[in-house]
Amino acid sequence: MRDAAQMPIVGMAGGGQLARMTQQAAIALGVSLRVLARSPGDSAAKVVSDARIGDDRALADLTAFAEGCEVVTFDHEHVPGPHIEAVAAAGVPCRPGADALRHAQDKLVMRERLSALGAPCPAFRHLPAATATADLAAFADEHGWPVVLKATRGGYDGKGVWVLREPDDALVERVLADGVDLMVEAHVPFRRELAALVARSPYGQGAAYPVVETVQENGVCVEVLAPAPDLDTDRAVAAERLALEIADKLGVTGLLAVELFETEDGLIVNELAMRPHNSGHWTIEGARTSQFEQHLRAVLDLPLGSTEPTARWTVMANVLGGDDPALYERMGHVMAHDPAVKVHLYGKDVRPGRKIGHVTAQGDDLAQTRSRARKAADYLRRGRKENP
Amino acid sequence: MRDAAQMPIVGMAGGGQLARMTQQAAIALGVSLRVLARSPGDSAAKVVSDARIGDDRALADLTAFAEGCEVVTFDHEHVPGPHIEAVAAAGVPCRPGADALRHAQDKLVMRERLSALGAPCPAFRHLPAATATADLAAFADEHGWPVVLKATRGGYDGKGVWVLREPDDALVERVLADGVDLMVEAHVPFRRELAALVARSPYGQGAAYPVVETVQENGVCVEVLAPAPDLDTDRAVAAERLALEIADKLGVTGLLAVELFETEDGLIVNELAMRPHNSGHWTIEGARTSQFEQHLRAVLDLPLGSTEPTARWTVMANVLGGDDPALYERMGHVMAHDPAVKVHLYGKDVRPGRKIGHVTAQGDDLAQTRSRARKAADYLRRGRKENP
Repeated sequence: MRDAAQMPIVGMAGGGQLARMTQQAAIALGVSLRVLARSPGDSAAKVVSDARIGDDRALADLTAFAEGCEVVTFDHEHVPGPHIEAVAAAGVPCRPGADALRHAQDKLVMRERLSALGAPCPAFRHLPAATATADLAAFADEHGWPVVLKATRGGYDGKGVWVLREPDDALVERVLADGVDLMVEAHVPFRRELAALVARSPYGQGAAYPVVETVQENGVCVEVLAPAPDLDTDRAVAAERLALEIADKLGVTGLLAVELFETEDGLIVNELAMRPHNSGHWTIEGARTSQFEQHLRAVLDLPLGSTEPTARWTVMANVLGGDDPALYERMGHVMAHDPAVKVHLYGKDVRPGRKIGHVTAQGDDLAQTRSRARKAADYLRRGRKENP
Repeated sequence: MRDAAQMPIVGMAGGGQLARMTQQAAIALGVSLRVLARSPGDSAAKVVSDARIGDDRALADLTAFAEGCEVVTFDHEHVPGPHIEAVAAAGVPCRPGADALRHAQDKLVMRERLSALGAPCPAFRHLPAATATADLAAFADEHGWPVVLKATRGGYDGKGVWVLREPDDALVERVLADGVDLMVEAHVPFRRELAALVARSPYGQGAAYPVVETVQENGVCVEVLAPAPDLDTDRAVAAERLALEIADKLGVTGLLAVELFETEDGLIVNELAMRPHNSGHWTIEGARTSQFEQHLRAVLDLPLGSTEPTARWTVMANVLGGDDPALYERMGHVMAHDPAVKVHLYGKDVRPGRKIGHVTAQGDDLAQTRSRARKAADYLRRGRKENP
């Protein structure tokens, strides 16, 4: 038992930028963040004094890490469910728990559960390895091309997702040969992508952030507009309710990000994440309570914070790595060009296409705010070079 | 020389809450913060991975700490000037430099310099130990009672400052016996206290935050109102200009806080600080660029950030320690009561009267915003107990 005079330790498995930004929130709340990182050079390990180095997929490392924590949470989906159950059984609550988290770990489990709950999902079908190409063909016969082939587990940022406009048995066989479990979904002709971010505490309190629009390029989120422009109020409310209901029905504790397609007819669930999410980075400046603070409050079963926006428009643009590693020099130029843009760098080596940071702009005019964010992000990636 | 692909290391001597909050800003900018703390339990040492333990008043510790830093800066005024000069001579720039910093280290040096520059100061006089009581009496004869007795060096939060309404030779002798160097100042009949916070970079760029009102109790700042309510625009501009001019004339690099008395006739300089300052904690939420980020930008000679306010009113209230150490439990109650108030705790043990954190509220109505901040701070101190 923690003494009443002590502040709790929150353990976060994973050493990426989500844990790094959670450290900023932990510093304010006076709670201690402990991370389990693969290497001392990981994004979060660089800025957390209590960084344990280990493999969060190894039970022994996870158990040693969890000892003394008030609660364990995650900056990614890769910790095996049985390990999480073992830690919980040893007396350290894990939030989200293994039962909830598997809906973010396995897209097939998620689809089956959400469909059973009546949440709007595209048609889908598991593709057992023995009959995968035939099952895919049958699915496409029924639902039409294109179809979306997905690895049920382990994908991120567009990896593990393939849009097929026609049969491609060679691709399917190649992926299966890597031991990947596959499913197929109907392709959704969406107008744009939205994200609904909510928090839920063990006590059952829920809080929803304004629904945002996410802009993707090559399967990677490049921009988030908060709130989603021209979103019908009823639809915004429906999206928030849907996310809160999913959080409740799945027993999520902590944050839940629901990635949505907006179609002519309404909303369709794309993916779930149960942690701080790229679509919520705008909240650091753009909401009274950042998603990182909110996640800490939720997993600690503290009362949730206000999600009220702080400006008319907040636009976040991801900074992807380019060819030139001289990021610090470029940051200076961005600061000179726009003294009000906020730069967030993740302490990662620059590699082409890698998410190495983000920028946030706020203002009363959406087009202007968006332009400021994009310019800053583009400059941090490329400097003066023209777009390719 | 730092490789262009690397991010700089900023060394901050001192392990207090100012260094702790600077870590939050360093994480965003992707620069590495290294602190020199007296103990691993210090406020900043708890949250900085690169915390060196040592005495920043010992040259060997300071020199070892500075090695590899792009720049060294300070979270307090206690590093001896000759040590700072030695570090700079060894090739690591110190910002502010020793020449500037001595005006924040020695109140007599500050008064002499500011008076020579024509900045508005109260009458003052050094009190050499041999003639102190007689000199004080002569000063009071000339300027009237009360007078303000001050230790020229080492005071903070009202310590080292005594308001004398009549002669008190016993006090003077007692303080002198402790080896304290003394000065006396005329007592300023002020209407209220203000603070002007500016940043200046080595390049010479300056940036001023809106002038704030600071409310003190027993010599300790308890509340900051941003911007200062009902402050005449000309006077606000005059205060900002005065602070920028002092920063320029004294060659300050980094932040400069100028504590001011507002009198019937105008402004009078009270104290200077060359670091992030309690009167600027409101900027974490209340300005586009927090004072901690601004200090990093200034000492790194990066372009300064926008000081634009993010809300009509931002009120910061300090959280002082009370009798009950169960701070975490009280934080939960504060969050339940006001989901939009922001709590900042410094990771310090609770001791009566000690600054252990602060809270920030924002809103359109000053009285309401102020009440919210005070209630949260009072509750964190005392829980449900009535004010004494």
